[in-house]
Amino acid sequence: MLDQLRVVLFRPKYPENIGSVARACLNMGVSDLVIVDPYNFNMDKALPLATAHARHVLETAPIVDTLEQAVDGCTAVYGTTARTGGWRKGIMNPDALAGVVDERLRGGGRVAVVFGPEDKGLTNEETSICSGLMTIPTSREGTSLNLAQAVVVVLYECFKRSLDAPFVPDGPPEERPTTVQEQATLFDNLQETLLAIDFLKDDNPDYWMLPVRRFFSKINLRRNEFNLLMGVCRQVKWFVNAYGPDKKNADK
Amino acid sequence: MLDQLRVVLFRPKYPENIGSVARACLNMGVSDLVIVDPYNFNMDKALPLATAHARHVLETAPIVDTLEQAVDGCTAVYGTTARTGGWRKGIMNPDALAGVVDERLRGGGRVAVVFGPEDKGLTNEETSICSGLMTIPTSREGTSLNLAQAVVVVLYECFKRSLDAPFVPDGPPEERPTTVQEQATLFDNLQETLLAIDFLKDDNPDYWMLPVRRFFSKINLRRNEFNLLMGVCRQVKWFVNAYGPDKKNADK
Repeated sequence: MLDQLRVVLFRPKYPENIGSVARACLNMGVSDLVIVDPYNFNMDKALPLATAHARHVLETAPIVDTLEQAVDGCTAVYGTTARTGGWRKGIMNPDALAGVVDERLRGGGRVAVVFGPEDKGLTNEETSICSGLMTIPTSREGTSLNLAQAVVVVLYECFKRSLDAPFVPDGPPEERPTTVQEQATLFDNLQETLLAIDFLKDDNPDYWMLPVRRFFSKINLRRNEFNLLMGVCRQVKWFVNAYGPDKKNADK
Repeated sequence: MLDQLRVVLFRPKYPENIGSVARACLNMGVSDLVIVDPYNFNMDKALPLATAHARHVLETAPIVDTLEQAVDGCTAVYGTTARTGGWRKGIMNPDALAGVVDERLRGGGRVAVVFGPEDKGLTNEETSICSGLMTIPTSREGTSLNLAQAVVVVLYECFKRSLDAPFVPDGPPEERPTTVQEQATLFDNLQETLLAIDFLKDDNPDYWMLPVRRFFSKINLRRNEFNLLMGVCRQVKWFVNAYGPDKKNADK
């Protein structure tokens, strides 16, 4: 049931933690582990912690350079964070995340959960790719969880949820969930379009796009809806080109 | 809220795991850690895994010789197991355990959760002291969880539950929960009494007592109820002495 769930370790610092994560993945029925740009990776240090049982999970885990590569083909990406300030609102607990992940998996999606480096966690740059963020509740006295322990708590919640009811894929292929790449294409297109009609400010469009991205992240966008929205963008841009002022920024 | 929850590690083999457990305890607001007869304990190996934050949890954890000493003063003891065969029925998942623990803690009890050695887990001898058993659901491919990861999953469930509602202690002192020692005294007394009236077989009374123990383990026995039951036992034994056959086993 969790075979469409991917665990992504972003720049992990300690090979031992990677081994422990592989074991936790096996315990909870996850075999899709991807490691991004690890620090001083050393298979000899990682393997004993994975134990013989989870050796294959560790040995088959791809090591890639970027987070974008790591979430390739996924339909939703969730980030984990211990920092809950700033724009990081609406952060889920593992329970809520498990509900969302379960719904997406049952809808035929492939979901990635991303864990940041042990010391710093994910930065805003990395979380911007995420459809949602999650934090594990802790005591105030000890807010920093070990990486592998954070992974096992999250996967345990997802595994528990997956046991609740049998898996029933739904919907025809044209209604399949969109991949993160498709969503990125749509966001770029939306941004261009909203800039073209002067809805977004030229000075910092990425910032003004955040609420738009957040809105779409909450929706489990399907391929037919993606096609529809891309079509709307195309039409708006055609309209601006055909009828808009030639130098539309001159009179600002 | 979890300051009346005790984590007991029974004969842990790896000091690193003990350190990781101390960190997990701190993360989830538990500071009462007791270690029973550890194998080759080495503080230098355990401390780095505890991190500086949880150093005090590890350094103040008593090291004792027996499980009985470790659960001294507790009102309920729960064992963790990966083995679910034999008489080990009615085993809870962590969710259910958290509910039971929460109820006991809110009732003013002190609860111990016992984790066995990494390789073998708790034997029937050790689980016989337990009011209930718990197992963490896992994938069939990987049923063996790392010790500290098992601890963090269990404590996470308990911590989550403790956040649900504020703590309200209930009842007057005479209704305080009974300690494990009091329960053991009661069980011994019940066994003597049931033997005296030939309810239990002489050949293996411990075995025949199991269902009785299980029945009472489910009840959060209070001190006034303990007094009542002890009084009933006393009266039955007085009756047998006063009116029973002089050599009651002779005619068997």
